[in-house]
Amino acid sequence: MSRFQPKNPDYRAIAIATFEQQRAMKTLGISIARLEPGEVDLAMDYSADFTQQHGFVHAGIITAGLDTACGIAAFTLMPAATGILTVEFKTNLLAPARGERFAFRATVIKPGRTLTVCEARVYATRDGAETLIATMSGTLMALAARESVATDRAGVPA
Amino acid sequence: MSRFQPKNPDYRAIAIATFEQQRAMKTLGISIARLEPGEVDLAMDYSADFTQQHGFVHAGIITAGLDTACGIAAFTLMPAATGILTVEFKTNLLAPARGERFAFRATVIKPGRTLTVCEARVYATRDGAETLIATMSGTLMALAARESVATDRAGVPA
Amino acid sequence: MSRFQPKNPDYRAIAIATFEQQRAMKTLGISIARLEPGEVDLAMDYSADFTQQHGFVHAGIITAGLDTACGIAAFTLMPAATGILTVEFKTNLLAPARGERFAFRATVIKPGRTLTVCEARVYATRDGAETLIATMSGTLMALAARESVATDRAGVPA
Amino acid sequence: MSRFQPKNPDYRAIAIATFEQQRAMKTLGISIARLEPGEVDLAMDYSADFTQQHGFVHAGIITAGLDTACGIAAFTLMPAATGILTVEFKTNLLAPARGERFAFRATVIKPGRTLTVCEARVYATRDGAETLIATMSGTLMALAARESVATDRAGVPA
Repeated sequence: MSRFQPKNPDYRAIAIATFEQQRAMKTLGISIARLEPGEVDLAMDYSADFTQQHGFVHAGIITAGLDTACGIAAFTLMPAATGILTVEFKTNLLAPARGERFAFRATVIKPGRTLTVCEARVYATRDGAETLIATMSGTLMALAARESVATDRAGVPA
Repeated sequence: MSRFQPKNPDYRAIAIATFEQQRAMKTLGISIARLEPGEVDLAMDYSADFTQQHGFVHAGIITAGLDTACGIAAFTLMPAATGILTVEFKTNLLAPARGERFAFRATVIKPGRTLTVCEARVYATRDGAETLIATMSGTLMALAARESVATDRAGVPA
Repeated sequence: MSRFQPKNPDYRAIAIATFEQQRAMKTLGISIARLEPGEVDLAMDYSADFTQQHGFVHAGIITAGLDTACGIAAFTLMPAATGILTVEFKTNLLAPARGERFAFRATVIKPGRTLTVCEARVYATRDGAETLIATMSGTLMALAARESVATDRAGVPA
Repeated sequence: MSRFQPKNPDYRAIAIATFEQQRAMKTLGISIARLEPGEVDLAMDYSADFTQQHGFVHAGIITAGLDTACGIAAFTLMPAATGILTVEFKTNLLAPARGERFAFRATVIKPGRTLTVCEARVYATRDGAETLIATMSGTLMALAARESVATDRAGVPA
């Protein structure tokens, strides 16, 4: 049970639709594993196509999963007819991104009318053991439907 | 002319080799545009495969370019037989990542024996005009050759 | 000459008044050294009262100067009857904060209707030589006059 | 009960001594409320001397408490004869820092031989109710006793 009450009764369908519009998620092989109000888990299998010089998953790819997990988690709590932008995020890399599978787990820390703050962690599964490999804290922004994503504001689509 | 003096006379060949070992760079279509001691520019063409829900490049993909630009910039100043890890980075997203081409420009702010701090910016080119779309500040760590990337330390391969 | 055009012709008086309302600045001995549209320099003398265990200025105090420099720089570009909030910042500490005097230099990177992104650097002067000791990137938010600072939004007064 | 096993049996005495050497803590009225291996709580009473323009505690002062909480938490897990540096931190401000009393709660997320990553939160107590007002993620660095704090490395005393 999530501790959040969504404002949009269709939050689930809209969050899934937004996720599926992210072609990067399909290309990276990332899927939704769990979706509750304010909480999203994503899953990704290892792919050698997205590795760095030691054969581990690249930090930017790890960040892509963390960012989308945060964005969708924040989006579930926004009113209908709202767009979502990522304002900023910080990633701390704790251990090599090696494993067969990766779980991105995001939760809203502070929802807000304009800005929502999320935290996320990513765990690698390797030989059956799960290791925390990175953390994110990030700020997401709600964009009213009447506002273009091309406005002068800082903050851009997730 | 860079203001930095590299410790490793082979810095250029080793930096390029490390970049080329990052399979993620090849998959994302990112290449080296300029490489000087402590300064690296990367270039990426737009690809719909790596977009978010509005058709702009995903923030994680933008971050991948920024992170590798920072990592290679830091690496050029490290001694021979050193590995390189990303410790952390923060990305501020300033404008939508739309354009035909993206330029990632990283520079070392503070080189160090153990830790190096870099800053990077990414510019989108669209219809001939260049726009700053995101910034990164990040910390990179030198890893002595005798140390395994599997050590207990926080900080992981870029 | 600043590259920014302020929206509020009284930006200077209002920015200075806001700075002077920050009692923390007076307590820390921080003053305005330069104020242009989108650019602010602050100055602080060393005080043993605000040191950490090695006698250098505490990173939180350094951050206080960086944050206010960013906040006032952002504020100079906002319309009249607007409040200003700090949303987030990240500080990288590059060298010990030792010296007789510290200069905080902030500049707006991306102004926006709602969010403004700033960067700042702090330099220590010691025996006549100036050293870069820390950097900040931060996000500031404009708050319309009709909105209370007690709204549900994330983002709080600087 | 902490989940961490300290390497230094004297961790408590040394952590307290390091805290007490931070004159900034005394000046800000911050004290240790709880200290376990890898976990530290600090407490601070409201003081008008450290406020911003709305009378709330300045974000830099909040950051000072968060940073020291993280630094001492990391320090409890380091071996004897080690110094501690803050490398970087990021603070997200979630709500105004108003209240009679503030609790800073830090925990180590990933200890390491060289780098330790911590997270911290600060809660304001106002009229008996506690509100989460800010979060920090930060990186701390162990400094071997033989190394001067004046080394060329990035990373500086907390």
